[in-house]
Amino acid sequence: MPIDPDLALRRIAPAIRRTPVLQCTALSALAGARLSFKAEHLQHTGSFKFRGACHAVAELPDDCPGVATHSSGNHGAALAAAAAARGLTAHVVMPRNAVAAKAAAVRRLGGTIHFCEPTQTAREHGLQALVAAGYAPVPPYDDERIIAGQATVAMELIAQQPEIDCIVAPIGGGGLLAGVTIATARYASWIEVIGAEPSGADDAARSLAQGRRVDDHQPETIADGLRALVGVRNLEILARHRTRILTCSESGIVTAMRLIWQHLKQVVEPSAAAGLATLLEHREYFAGRRVGIVLTGGNLDTERLLEHLEVTHG
Amino acid sequence: MPIDPDLALRRIAPAIRRTPVLQCTALSALAGARLSFKAEHLQHTGSFKFRGACHAVAELPDDCPGVATHSSGNHGAALAAAAAARGLTAHVVMPRNAVAAKAAAVRRLGGTIHFCEPTQTAREHGLQALVAAGYAPVPPYDDERIIAGQATVAMELIAQQPEIDCIVAPIGGGGLLAGVTIATARYASWIEVIGAEPSGADDAARSLAQGRRVDDHQPETIADGLRALVGVRNLEILARHRTRILTCSESGIVTAMRLIWQHLKQVVEPSAAAGLATLLEHREYFAGRRVGIVLTGGNLDTERLLEHLEVTHG
Repeated sequence: MPIDPDLALRRIAPAIRRTPVLQCTALSALAGARLSFKAEHLQHTGSFKFRGACHAVAELPDDCPGVATHSSGNHGAALAAAAAARGLTAHVVMPRNAVAAKAAAVRRLGGTIHFCEPTQTAREHGLQALVAAGYAPVPPYDDERIIAGQATVAMELIAQQPEIDCIVAPIGGGGLLAGVTIATARYASWIEVIGAEPSGADDAARSLAQGRRVDDHQPETIADGLRALVGVRNLEILARHRTRILTCSESGIVTAMRLIWQHLKQVVEPSAAAGLATLLEHREYFAGRRVGIVLTGGNLDTERLLEHLEVTHG
Repeated sequence: MPIDPDLALRRIAPAIRRTPVLQCTALSALAGARLSFKAEHLQHTGSFKFRGACHAVAELPDDCPGVATHSSGNHGAALAAAAAARGLTAHVVMPRNAVAAKAAAVRRLGGTIHFCEPTQTAREHGLQALVAAGYAPVPPYDDERIIAGQATVAMELIAQQPEIDCIVAPIGGGGLLAGVTIATARYASWIEVIGAEPSGADDAARSLAQGRRVDDHQPETIADGLRALVGVRNLEILARHRTRILTCSESGIVTAMRLIWQHLKQVVEPSAAAGLATLLEHREYFAGRRVGIVLTGGNLDTERLLEHLEVTHG
């Protein structure tokens, strides 16, 4: 199926929020670049994942018995909300170590959770069982419908800030980055797209460097939304468009998260801070440029937040 | 001097941000009312105080030797920024127990701090000494220029959300609430204005009830921006327009602050949560109404934030 961001935007526009773009003199001064933040943590269900989920659900037949997925949380909540809006049930395979606030959100939105071990294999097996039971699979990222939905983040950002010359988006499974890559190539090919990946979960960077999808993926990062292995379709898109990936450290993510709270006054989750963290750790690369950074989500546990703050104060 | 919000807005419009109005289905459902949040924590220097400070500084003569004020922090930072933009120095008397992040902001913006004991008398004496030294006084709230500047919050909110029937704004010294009262009476007299005051610093509520400005003011509240004694001019305006004040508890403020972080994804300081706290503790009064709530500021110490979170987790 071809990926058509324009068609996706027409389909989901009535359901999604056109999230604002925020600017901040202090953060721009700190970065030595002109920063614009696309506030997808203010999207319905608190993350950009609602876009892809809405798009995938829009294409399902009316007699569909329900949907199933695996997710560390944000895609699960997004799918539960998107499915509920069509009167469908949603079954979500979640790793046992998922952020409690994210599991609670899936339940609150009417989804059913099936916990599994925190490995890629266990997640995929769990989903296979649900598909065998008759539910329509809506994978979190390795899916054309999802990639097209996430591409609408870039379409909006480009329309809202046409003068940007670079977009930085975090990469976990790669749905967002692949979507941003496709939308940008189609509608604003002069804009460079950069993936921001935690060093502790740098499978996408290594896969692009090695020219094959790595399989020794043991992610260790506080950015719980970026632990997934990059998807097959996603990696193929990134390789084809030569999308560059830069990595960031764990302490850089915590620092960036605090800077976003303090100066932008926005509550974002660790994964959402990976873009600013990467920019601050590669300052020379972005110096003087006009950079759009995607804030991907704002769902986090208060307890976990406390730990992070203590780390940086310590 | 007459208070003219329209003139004030024309004067300060080039300098201030027209802050967004945020909505949130979850918080509206929780409150049983349709809530709109005027995001003044996203104003320059992180609070609405920048409006009044800009307006007061705009009226000073070019040969003014500098400005002086007393402030728990936000007015001080706002005045430092507004003065710096005109090339003037700013001297700020601050109580020793001021929030460290707020003192740091005053310094960062070029202001000079003069610490004093945390009493109303000490603050006023400190300011008198600076005025005697030749600096132009810009009081934090008991001043027509300041009241007119803060009134522009309501003018914007009414233009952005014309269907609201009520505005809730926190009251400390009363610059904001008096300004909102005057602007609303002039431009949208069908809108009810409600002041939100912590029970532990309820001098304005008691002053209105007793028909005279109370003088036994010993504030105890985590809302550091709402500890000041209501100003003489401010109280007169509130009494003349019969502005209603409702109070909220300390635990209500902490709960409201967490709800704003979790659902609205906005970092606000305790004072800014007083509006939602008051609404949630007087649900029947606001049931079914369309309420505009002013989020006044977003400047807080991380350490203090941790304490509050632990309280509510306790």
